[in-house]
Amino acid sequence: MDGRATSASGAVLTRRRFFEGLAAYGGVSLAMAGMDALGYGFASAQAAPPPLEGGGKGIKVVVLGAGLAGLTAAYELTKHGYDVQVLEARDFAGGRCQTARKGFRHVDLLGNDQTCQFDEGLYINHGPWRIPYHHRSTLHYTKLLGVPLESFVNDNDAAYVYFEKGEGPLKGKPVRKGEIAADARGHAAELMAKVAAKGGLDGAFTAQDRDLFVAYMVNEGRLSPSDLAYSGTDGRGFDVHPGAGVSPGPGKPSTPRSMADVLHSGAWRTLTSVAGYEQQRTMLQPIGGMDQLAKAFERKVADKISYSCVVETIGQDAKGVKIGYRDAAGKKAEVVADYCICTIPLSVLRNVDLQASKPFKAAMEGVAYAPVNKIGLQMKRRFWEEDHFIYGGHIYNDMPGIGTISLPSTGWQSQKGVLLGYYSFGGEAARISAKSPAERAAFAVAGGQKVFPEYADAYENAFSFCWHLAEHNLGGWAEWGEEGRKTAYPVLCEPDGRLYLAGEHLSYLGGWQAGAIESAWQQIAKLHARVRAA
Amino acid sequence: MDGRATSASGAVLTRRRFFEGLAAYGGVSLAMAGMDALGYGFASAQAAPPPLEGGGKGIKVVVLGAGLAGLTAAYELTKHGYDVQVLEARDFAGGRCQTARKGFRHVDLLGNDQTCQFDEGLYINHGPWRIPYHHRSTLHYTKLLGVPLESFVNDNDAAYVYFEKGEGPLKGKPVRKGEIAADARGHAAELMAKVAAKGGLDGAFTAQDRDLFVAYMVNEGRLSPSDLAYSGTDGRGFDVHPGAGVSPGPGKPSTPRSMADVLHSGAWRTLTSVAGYEQQRTMLQPIGGMDQLAKAFERKVADKISYSCVVETIGQDAKGVKIGYRDAAGKKAEVVADYCICTIPLSVLRNVDLQASKPFKAAMEGVAYAPVNKIGLQMKRRFWEEDHFIYGGHIYNDMPGIGTISLPSTGWQSQKGVLLGYYSFGGEAARISAKSPAERAAFAVAGGQKVFPEYADAYENAFSFCWHLAEHNLGGWAEWGEEGRKTAYPVLCEPDGRLYLAGEHLSYLGGWQAGAIESAWQQIAKLHARVRAA
Repeated sequence: MDGRATSASGAVLTRRRFFEGLAAYGGVSLAMAGMDALGYGFASAQAAPPPLEGGGKGIKVVVLGAGLAGLTAAYELTKHGYDVQVLEARDFAGGRCQTARKGFRHVDLLGNDQTCQFDEGLYINHGPWRIPYHHRSTLHYTKLLGVPLESFVNDNDAAYVYFEKGEGPLKGKPVRKGEIAADARGHAAELMAKVAAKGGLDGAFTAQDRDLFVAYMVNEGRLSPSDLAYSGTDGRGFDVHPGAGVSPGPGKPSTPRSMADVLHSGAWRTLTSVAGYEQQRTMLQPIGGMDQLAKAFERKVADKISYSCVVETIGQDAKGVKIGYRDAAGKKAEVVADYCICTIPLSVLRNVDLQASKPFKAAMEGVAYAPVNKIGLQMKRRFWEEDHFIYGGHIYNDMPGIGTISLPSTGWQSQKGVLLGYYSFGGEAARISAKSPAERAAFAVAGGQKVFPEYADAYENAFSFCWHLAEHNLGGWAEWGEEGRKTAYPVLCEPDGRLYLAGEHLSYLGGWQAGAIESAWQQIAKLHARVRAA
Repeated sequence: MDGRATSASGAVLTRRRFFEGLAAYGGVSLAMAGMDALGYGFASAQAAPPPLEGGGKGIKVVVLGAGLAGLTAAYELTKHGYDVQVLEARDFAGGRCQTARKGFRHVDLLGNDQTCQFDEGLYINHGPWRIPYHHRSTLHYTKLLGVPLESFVNDNDAAYVYFEKGEGPLKGKPVRKGEIAADARGHAAELMAKVAAKGGLDGAFTAQDRDLFVAYMVNEGRLSPSDLAYSGTDGRGFDVHPGAGVSPGPGKPSTPRSMADVLHSGAWRTLTSVAGYEQQRTMLQPIGGMDQLAKAFERKVADKISYSCVVETIGQDAKGVKIGYRDAAGKKAEVVADYCICTIPLSVLRNVDLQASKPFKAAMEGVAYAPVNKIGLQMKRRFWEEDHFIYGGHIYNDMPGIGTISLPSTGWQSQKGVLLGYYSFGGEAARISAKSPAERAAFAVAGGQKVFPEYADAYENAFSFCWHLAEHNLGGWAEWGEEGRKTAYPVLCEPDGRLYLAGEHLSYLGGWQAGAIESAWQQIAKLHARVRAA
């Protein structure tokens, strides 16, 4: 295996291009077979944009919305010779791929008018904020468009967990997650190892495997190999940290909590020993804010975008589409095109006068949109680093309406920082969003104060965003139910006449940028196939 | 609690200063009591340098070695009015805090003469390379000296593990760590949950706690709550990743491996569900190379350092110390001072003509130094990111002499990268170090090729470093045995006449920069107390 393969044209291909080639020419299953044959077992249907071979030859496509789906469609279609026009309701591109920094203004549907007051250089990603390694579509564009990335700390054992609804000595007490993890897992491994060693699992194992299993438990739970006991471990921290000389010298080990204390606290709910698919322990983020991705796209297609144009009607017939909108001056205007790619969220599109088939319009009703709140709090000093030695990660807690508090993964050891004061969904998000921005900030600060005594004192200003109160979004993301996925979703994934929908709502990567991008890839591939066949 | 306290002088103190004040005035135990009283349970003996109140008033201190211990001593003593001179054997400061980049030259004791050929901007930290959050002393100086930090990915479930000595279907096959983790932990949790649910652990739990425990196991192992079965989980990856539309749509879940396959592979040895004290999942590193810390120190005290001065004799009497050395021109020279802080590794110091008490000199023999190898391999493209979607972390394996292969945590998505081709200790390190640099590189590339088919093809050049073959180190770090810690170590922590030793070898943070820094802090505090008392 030399990492190369030769294409039909005789050119030497890299492995990646080889697989992408398989996908492009032979479809998904062929590429998968290729990956499997090489033993890597990582197949992605869409790791690269569709090739759109032969080009669009001036066919006109109107794209509704300059979020990542619309930007992707506009960029790829333009590159391949289509005549593209994008109508964007806002006066900037990016859709939900937004970053609030000094001067960013947002007026919500309740009339709350906020202009971000963060110091220069500080920001909050109130939309998408992290990229997992397997979102190859998003990473395709960060690389292609030269958007520099840095690590996003998505799991930090040194970060506190805070549970006020549990029972016992941990109730309402900030505790480092690593302590909970060490004790829960240590005690569980001890129980398990002892049961196994006594033959209690002999139905499950051969004698040899039983011994391996016990050794595995010793490793996992940091047990004493001699008596299989868990009696704490350095990983849970020290009462006195090790250091120089004789004192502190080896330091003073910390004392584990009992399994009962951990169980009663409820804090074990934050533990999962298997990182989630979308929630890797370390992820990636664009340096300087997530909107750097949107801005990089925008630089490529800015001349195709008409800003502050709010779509009111979408008409079509056998020959083309006609979009009616109000322009930046509030005047009615229209654009005609051969096809339309509409990335407007269904929550908003439902209020547009849309010419589409009955089943299509019915399907548009089959999905709910999530109320989602975020708030950035500027702190005049990074007390979580200075006083608590927590560098990034999340404060998991059970405070209603707070969800997670998250610490920034950038600007380490600098003076100030903006942390995410809450990130909540659903009914709790709706409840908090009814408050004024000042009240929301007060609510967030009061929550954080329970965890960090320095919180209120360090707080300077806030910027809050409620996606369900954003006029052009009406929700954070599409939430498909089982029934909707079965009946409505497939209908919307197919074009209705000359209208193609695209966006995270037409993917199984709901709320992720990758969903928007891959949906756009899929729809422009369909559109292109139709154009080529015509 | 408002995060403030008032000092005796009436000034308002931050919490941090309050605790540091307690440590400075009342010693470690008082500071600990303070932290404990506030419920945070994080006490560090030395979170900040000793105040050296009253100053050094021109007392002359000669510091031997400009590694982090020597630089710390020189910086703090100079700041407080001591007259400091540093003798450094190399022509640059930093000691083991080194970074190899283009033009960095190293001639080892076997005569291997290497000059690093990496492209501009690429580097390998062949000495220390990562900083845990609790090394407050190191972080004190990165902040104070303005050394910008970035994240170091120290755990990556997407990285492969590779075990060739195990048995079964995983033998010699690169597998993502997250798959091993999911399956081992999922199967174990299933066994455990079922035993518990059947009452098999009833001696350990009340009935209510048993139910909580089962719920905890469901969470940890991603079990089905209804039948407590582990049947795979999204966290182990997909055969076809979820995406847009109907296909790939939800993707195709992956199939878990059996517990027996995981146990037989040996790959479970890489798992510990409790992050180690020193090995946090995400750590920190200076942007641009670890030597940025040394260089920042050096800028502060460069005028105090005499470079290329190799110490040959250390003499002392009741009035002062006299150091004999060979200067850059090879000429004998000497320096006299009131005190000496000697940071020369014991492995090297044993060969210096040293005037010290018999017990002190005997104690110097009580420690071994570790053979340690590292090699940086420049790759012409980042195939681990491009083809395998692995962004940082380690390739754990059982290849003798390779130890870990580690992928860079910086320069994401850029063209080239330098990865750590091996990191090995002890006998294996000694064996590989006997090879020529070209042979070492070939050995490293052959190892990596087993994991990544692109390895040899992408390889461009290498820089290898063997700390036991470095003239001024003779080992990577001090390795204290139990007996040595008891008998020799305490002797060396105390001054012998006017000679104070300092370095990582006089700490329980062996091989870490924090050990060097904190040892220096401790010794200059002792020296200062003596000067003030005199």
